[in-house]
Amino acid sequence: MSGTKTNPGNFFEDFEVGQVLRHATPRTVTEGDRAAYGALYPTRFAVPSSAEFAASVGLSPAPVEDLIAFHIAFGKTVPDVSLNAVANLGYAECRFHRPVVPGDTIATRSEVIGLKQNSNGKTGVVYVRSTATNQRDEVVLDWARWVMVHKRDLDAPAPETVVPDLAPAVAADDLILPAGLDFTTYDFEAAGEPHRFDDYEIGEKIDHVDGVTLTDPEHMLATRLWQNTAKVHFNTEARPDGNRLVYGGHVISLARALSFNGLANGQLIAAINAGAHVSPAFAGDTVYAWSEVLDKAETPAPGVGALRLRLVATKGRDESMTLRGSDDTYAPGVLLDLDVWALVPR
Amino acid sequence: MSGTKTNPGNFFEDFEVGQVLRHATPRTVTEGDRAAYGALYPTRFAVPSSAEFAASVGLSPAPVEDLIAFHIAFGKTVPDVSLNAVANLGYAECRFHRPVVPGDTIATRSEVIGLKQNSNGKTGVVYVRSTATNQRDEVVLDWARWVMVHKRDLDAPAPETVVPDLAPAVAADDLILPAGLDFTTYDFEAAGEPHRFDDYEIGEKIDHVDGVTLTDPEHMLATRLWQNTAKVHFNTEARPDGNRLVYGGHVISLARALSFNGLANGQLIAAINAGAHVSPAFAGDTVYAWSEVLDKAETPAPGVGALRLRLVATKGRDESMTLRGSDDTYAPGVLLDLDVWALVPR
Amino acid sequence: MSGTKTNPGNFFEDFEVGQVLRHATPRTVTEGDRAAYGALYPTRFAVPSSAEFAASVGLSPAPVEDLIAFHIAFGKTVPDVSLNAVANLGYAECRFHRPVVPGDTIATRSEVIGLKQNSNGKTGVVYVRSTATNQRDEVVLDWARWVMVHKRDLDAPAPETVVPDLAPAVAADDLILPAGLDFTTYDFEAAGEPHRFDDYEIGEKIDHVDGVTLTDPEHMLATRLWQNTAKVHFNTEARPDGNRLVYGGHVISLARALSFNGLANGQLIAAINAGAHVSPAFAGDTVYAWSEVLDKAETPAPGVGALRLRLVATKGRDESMTLRGSDDTYAPGVLLDLDVWALVPR
Repeated sequence: MSGTKTNPGNFFEDFEVGQVLRHATPRTVTEGDRAAYGALYPTRFAVPSSAEFAASVGLSPAPVEDLIAFHIAFGKTVPDVSLNAVANLGYAECRFHRPVVPGDTIATRSEVIGLKQNSNGKTGVVYVRSTATNQRDEVVLDWARWVMVHKRDLDAPAPETVVPDLAPAVAADDLILPAGLDFTTYDFEAAGEPHRFDDYEIGEKIDHVDGVTLTDPEHMLATRLWQNTAKVHFNTEARPDGNRLVYGGHVISLARALSFNGLANGQLIAAINAGAHVSPAFAGDTVYAWSEVLDKAETPAPGVGALRLRLVATKGRDESMTLRGSDDTYAPGVLLDLDVWALVPR
Repeated sequence: MSGTKTNPGNFFEDFEVGQVLRHATPRTVTEGDRAAYGALYPTRFAVPSSAEFAASVGLSPAPVEDLIAFHIAFGKTVPDVSLNAVANLGYAECRFHRPVVPGDTIATRSEVIGLKQNSNGKTGVVYVRSTATNQRDEVVLDWARWVMVHKRDLDAPAPETVVPDLAPAVAADDLILPAGLDFTTYDFEAAGEPHRFDDYEIGEKIDHVDGVTLTDPEHMLATRLWQNTAKVHFNTEARPDGNRLVYGGHVISLARALSFNGLANGQLIAAINAGAHVSPAFAGDTVYAWSEVLDKAETPAPGVGALRLRLVATKGRDESMTLRGSDDTYAPGVLLDLDVWALVPR
Repeated sequence: MSGTKTNPGNFFEDFEVGQVLRHATPRTVTEGDRAAYGALYPTRFAVPSSAEFAASVGLSPAPVEDLIAFHIAFGKTVPDVSLNAVANLGYAECRFHRPVVPGDTIATRSEVIGLKQNSNGKTGVVYVRSTATNQRDEVVLDWARWVMVHKRDLDAPAPETVVPDLAPAVAADDLILPAGLDFTTYDFEAAGEPHRFDDYEIGEKIDHVDGVTLTDPEHMLATRLWQNTAKVHFNTEARPDGNRLVYGGHVISLARALSFNGLANGQLIAAINAGAHVSPAFAGDTVYAWSEVLDKAETPAPGVGALRLRLVATKGRDESMTLRGSDDTYAPGVLLDLDVWALVPR
């Protein structure tokens, strides 16, 4: 009987297209999460930092960082979707539908939207669309994700291949603006920088300058906070090299926080268009970030523009801000290549 | 005059049977503690995780983890009871009387219930019964504990030996159920596992599979959070080997959190029957846990059963789940042997 | 265009006397900060620990630690005042005007009150008076500070030298008492020590006995919590020796928390008269503290006295409590020499 009660996770042949997974352990967000996030990342964005500032732009109570919602919602999917994953291959079509405030309880469900067994017969790619809701069953965010998952039984038949059609980026018209958001009386001095929508040009790159050296306790604290249970983040016996792999979301949050220096007015994340964890990160690595403006769009919210940004995290500072080498592969040192829409004052 | 104002702690001859110690610094529990606990331990139990889930089983506002109350209440006793302790010898008869919710202020007092000088004349065993109350002076939890304490003056006369009669386990009929607790509409999917009372058999063992490698900053953050001031946890100059000893309660909380995988429905701890910190734990140790079902009992609360569980933490995974070797001593690698009653859905 | 949007900080020639800097990112204090502070420092002062105790002395809701307000208010000034600092030279005239409670939003502004170019022509001393206010624009605390800052352009002309006249200590009559503070029914047992105003004598020294060994993750968590962005605390590539410099405020908070043992009734800090960060601190250093009573004063608040204390943090314990050697330089091992007024029961 021993051992039969623990969660072995799902293997590739356990998924079928159309299947809905209701993920466990809804989680209530509190002011404690806001403080913990601020201890873990050098974030200073004025909306989540200040209840007064948030109210001045129409958001009251003050939402927590968008990425808190993302990490919690994402963490819920791990035990069912990616416990036996070989690799997280990508995200797409992640939209933030409404801010999360302390007291909100987040639950996540996922629908399997694609399956493709790999030619080696040992693994396959699972595509899911995940939806996080609050205690009023309102959608908080949703996203698509695909992961490569082990087969349990190599002789299990391959499923019919279904590859979903995912947008390369959320169209600007499909962005959802938080109800009440109004940047017309935006206080640039309180926010920390004078740069507004019109000051950013497509193609512009911004070196965020600052770096933070990773430690094991910090990324473990963060990863647990989101109830993410992947063994490799916590257990030195889980990898042959004895290192704890840093949760990719830790690098996302760190890069986002570092981007304050140059993008302090990118107050809210409206969408994550795509994301690639290019290289693993470990304790001792010093993480820097740079951004590139990929696109710009007006929005119907008063005074609010949207910048589509490539946010790149690197191990060691790359003042040249090079994403790819001449052979089109990622440049050495690139850890993360994230494509987001951020909301900024016009 | 210098030095006279600091607390030297009590030595063996400072205690007398019947003496009541009112411990210092009551402490208010907040949502910040819930978040910190979730950052420190990989806990996912649905009651403390989700206000919605807690309300669905009759508990609103959502209680914090039972062990938060235990650690805070216990930490209060350290300056008066065990600052000069050689060893924590055991716990018994710990009952959780009512859940602790954010805003509750916990204070602890202890009565000396036994004394026994050791034959070496240098130390003695002090037995106390400690009671933690909230701001309404309602009992939150109480427990007995015995510690071996240094004598200050080796020539001080031995007190009359009084050894209290402590139950080997809290009787099932003596368990206290939280007011309003009702598991009749328990949501197993939200809680994370389908296993209910009837699925567990006496004698069954569960390997909780996952492991976490300890770090110094994490156990220090935890131990301070409970205002536990024992020097050996914080100061590399306090032990000859230069290691910081991990607070035993840190291992308890870690093992409890790891037990989610296989005992996710063991939502609440009703009692701690006994506990032995078998070996010291240090940074770098990878802690795993397994459980054994020792007993089962019905309870008067709707849909609620009680499982008596042995929760064992080990350094390194022991898939054989061996508690003791052939000579009846603890198997190598056993860190903690804890005996608890947990409340589960029927 | 790249790089132009990040904050280069101000250089010596960017400051002029009379200039007012309104610092960015107001920050709302929450119960999460109280918990994080309690995890980071071994604090047990009864007022911030217990809502019940705080109410019993006239403070409800319970204020957070005074140093939380100090660190947040101070952190706000870093990007504008000391990003290009060579050294923090000193503080003076820091007064706490009113307690900060969860929900308060702190904003800081600074006025340049003095400038003095150094004879080397490469750096200069900038004197600012900073004022932190809450969401009602009430002053929370204010202080003067002087830092040595790099010149950007060594050919920039030296400004007229203005050196402000700063008091060596806040006069007892100028201390501000929290509205409603009343120690007449002070519960010494709950607070943890029996010593009151009359038990302390001018010249008395108290060895606080306990030590805590620093770690990098802990000081980084703390420093980020206060949104302090100085690179040297986070980035191993920022210093030639590859060490992360511990934020001086971390040592202040640690010493203050250690002072509980002997000064448990020094519940509130009313003023910081002066402060010198004598030596840098790094992970691995074990920090101890001792105090000297410098002065005593009555106050108009019922049952409240004020002790002027020198709070000294040392690397390694110095039972002799020696501040300076025979040549009047600081004794080896002294990390911090802080001069404060604390409020104690009479």
